Amino acid sequence: MKKLVGNLMYGQSGGPTSVINASAYGVIKEAQRNSDVIKDVYVMRHGIEGALNEDFFKISEQDIENIELLKYTPGSAFGSVRHKLPDFKEDDAMYIRLLYIFKKYDIRYFLYNGGNDSMDTCSKIAEYMDTIDYDVRIIGVPKTIDNDLPFTDHTPGYGSAAKFIANTIMEIHYDMLAYPNGKVTIVEIMGRHAGWLTASSALASLSGFGPDLIYLPEVPFSIEKFKREVKEIYNKKKQCLVAVSEGVANEDGIFISSSSGMKDAFGHFQLGGVASKLASTVSNDLGIPSRSVEFGSTQRAASHIQSLIDVNEAIRVGEEAVKGVLNHKNKVLVVINRTSDDPYTVEYKFHDLKAVANIEKKIPASMINKAGNGVTKAFIDYALPLIQGENENVFKNGIQRFSKFR
Amino acid sequence: MKKLVGNLMYGQSGGPTSVINASAYGVIKEAQRNSDVIKDVYVMRHGIEGALNEDFFKISEQDIENIELLKYTPGSAFGSVRHKLPDFKEDDAMYIRLLYIFKKYDIRYFLYNGGNDSMDTCSKIAEYMDTIDYDVRIIGVPKTIDNDLPFTDHTPGYGSAAKFIANTIMEIHYDMLAYPNGKVTIVEIMGRHAGWLTASSALASLSGFGPDLIYLPEVPFSIEKFKREVKEIYNKKKQCLVAVSEGVANEDGIFISSSSGMKDAFGHFQLGGVASKLASTVSNDLGIPSRSVEFGSTQRAASHIQSLIDVNEAIRVGEEAVKGVLNHKNKVLVVINRTSDDPYTVEYKFHDLKAVANIEKKIPASMINKAGNGVTKAFIDYALPLIQGENENVFKNGIQRFSKFR
Repeated sequence: MKKLVGNLMYGQSGGPTSVINASAYGVIKEAQRNSDVIKDVYVMRHGIEGALNEDFFKISEQDIENIELLKYTPGSAFGSVRHKLPDFKEDDAMYIRLLYIFKKYDIRYFLYNGGNDSMDTCSKIAEYMDTIDYDVRIIGVPKTIDNDLPFTDHTPGYGSAAKFIANTIMEIHYDMLAYPNGKVTIVEIMGRHAGWLTASSALASLSGFGPDLIYLPEVPFSIEKFKREVKEIYNKKKQCLVAVSEGVANEDGIFISSSSGMKDAFGHFQLGGVASKLASTVSNDLGIPSRSVEFGSTQRAASHIQSLIDVNEAIRVGEEAVKGVLNHKNKVLVVINRTSDDPYTVEYKFHDLKAVANIEKKIPASMINKAGNGVTKAFIDYALPLIQGENENVFKNGIQRFSKFR
Repeated sequence: MKKLVGNLMYGQSGGPTSVINASAYGVIKEAQRNSDVIKDVYVMRHGIEGALNEDFFKISEQDIENIELLKYTPGSAFGSVRHKLPDFKEDDAMYIRLLYIFKKYDIRYFLYNGGNDSMDTCSKIAEYMDTIDYDVRIIGVPKTIDNDLPFTDHTPGYGSAAKFIANTIMEIHYDMLAYPNGKVTIVEIMGRHAGWLTASSALASLSGFGPDLIYLPEVPFSIEKFKREVKEIYNKKKQCLVAVSEGVANEDGIFISSSSGMKDAFGHFQLGGVASKLASTVSNDLGIPSRSVEFGSTQRAASHIQSLIDVNEAIRVGEEAVKGVLNHKNKVLVVINRTSDDPYTVEYKFHDLKAVANIEKKIPASMINKAGNGVTKAFIDYALPLIQGENENVFKNGIQRFSKFR
């Protein structure tokens, strides 16, 4: 088989994670190890928009320290994007432009780092390039704190966010215990349709300081049941810590949050505010003092408490994607297949890209308790290995150092 | 001089910090090193209320691992309290009760760990015991994330909170940069009348990712000036990161926050909500997308990102308090005196307790920039040494372990 010599294009898309740049690091280093085939890496600024605008970071021109710092840098070091591509059968202008860019820069490998929506983008480009017979190999590199990609045991980004959430929940719980007559504290956690992040708060229970109640989007939410459960715990303990997903919805699928009615580029409702809404309900209807906490973007950006397992796996999926394209893989996503919980072991495989796009993996019933307000041991066994280990050399003089490109 | 043999009573009061338990550790270990004089340590549960209720943790009965874990445990491991003592000349019932307890348990040393309000408690008890001629030596052990105690260079607890804030601000800033058209992000930071915590966000600027604007309670806040400044930065950068103190007030001293009108036991207004109020102003009046972040209790509880300098100083002030009472000191507070910025060196001294109570140390004008929306190099030089070093052995299996007493 002929060797496909050319350049590799890489980009980041969707919400950042604290380890997506570690995947970029893996891609870059593995590409450099194969410089006989991959001449250079072009990183798109703001994902696919950078490609369309001819706005790249040429890796051969970047300084080495910035590349090394990718392992510790949260956010999207090269910029991200939320850009839904049209169906090329209806509107191919963007695809023609992309083909022109691919040819101009001799792009033969295209790796796109993202979640469900990004795999949709990836899949459409691959299909178009196939149709017009341009020889390029396209692989998706998984990332999302939400952990909702199918066909992979978990996604890079999830472990670090879970570690931040579990440890911060512990701290909030311990802080609450300072006073004898406490409050109901309601912590709102990201995750639109899948409760993986909210469930990770349960890992704090291993230290004895987990949430009293956990409400996941997988379980229809009832305000009356919520009030009953909070009241029962508060009456017993004079404290109650609740972890609630931003995406909890009632039996009819209506979000409990005070939806702003605004939608993002993919047509998803912008959520937020469910904790403050529930805290008001507790204060007003139950007459119990309450407060709400929203972690906000810190849960996806907390590079200072990355999981080392997660960082290493993020690097590895980047490397595997490069190995994949060099081994003639195309139109696939790198996936992680767990082979054992204890000791924790995984292997890296590939899965058809088109099958992945737009499917959201939810928490299975076996991991949710019968009362619908907590998780089972099966979830703990699943999630605990993913938060192990701490990344070293994160701090210098008490603050972190992040990559700065251009 | 006769040796005063007896027991030592210790308690925690006011808002927790992530290192107040490290001071408890210092007290306990130093007391144990002087067991010829100090027979045992009685730790009050929920501060002075524990003393009045005869509710103690007898340290000789506690297991050693729990004591060692105090170095890593946030919150108040023995419970805290906000309890204002009356003037004993007007109402001495509580003081008579306390005297009875002191005699019953042979308390000859009394150490109270807290901020301004706690020093008021400490001072009143000392004065009463003096008046009725009961031989007990009383020393205050400083703590407060707010850093507003006078006569000490800084307070244990501040460095760790500052480290959490600076690093989290960096992460939020970097996360914001993912998208080309960003938002105005307004982060609300604790500190009622003193802006030390809010100012610490500026340490993130050393990495290039600090806030664009910092609003301190020391500077009268003008909504019109705020809107002008935000608009100017947003027009230039399409992003703007604002750090604002919960305690910003207008020229007449009226808090900008939507005060709930509720007061705590010391008559302080409960604050909160200024960031969401300002975010609404930005969206409604300027038409710029905005969002607010409130760190809440995480900023005082984030044991996973303690400053090692802070932990060690917290232990040391506990030890110094014990050495102080053994050296016949009474009615004083342990204070930290900085002798050099670079290299950072300090010495430990004592200051009259009564002079300390109810004075709040604010940021001096030399540390605030002329525009009143940021800090000067003098602040950075002051604060940077306080966030140095990381505490090891915090995590086990990815989560922290905290002390559990009784």
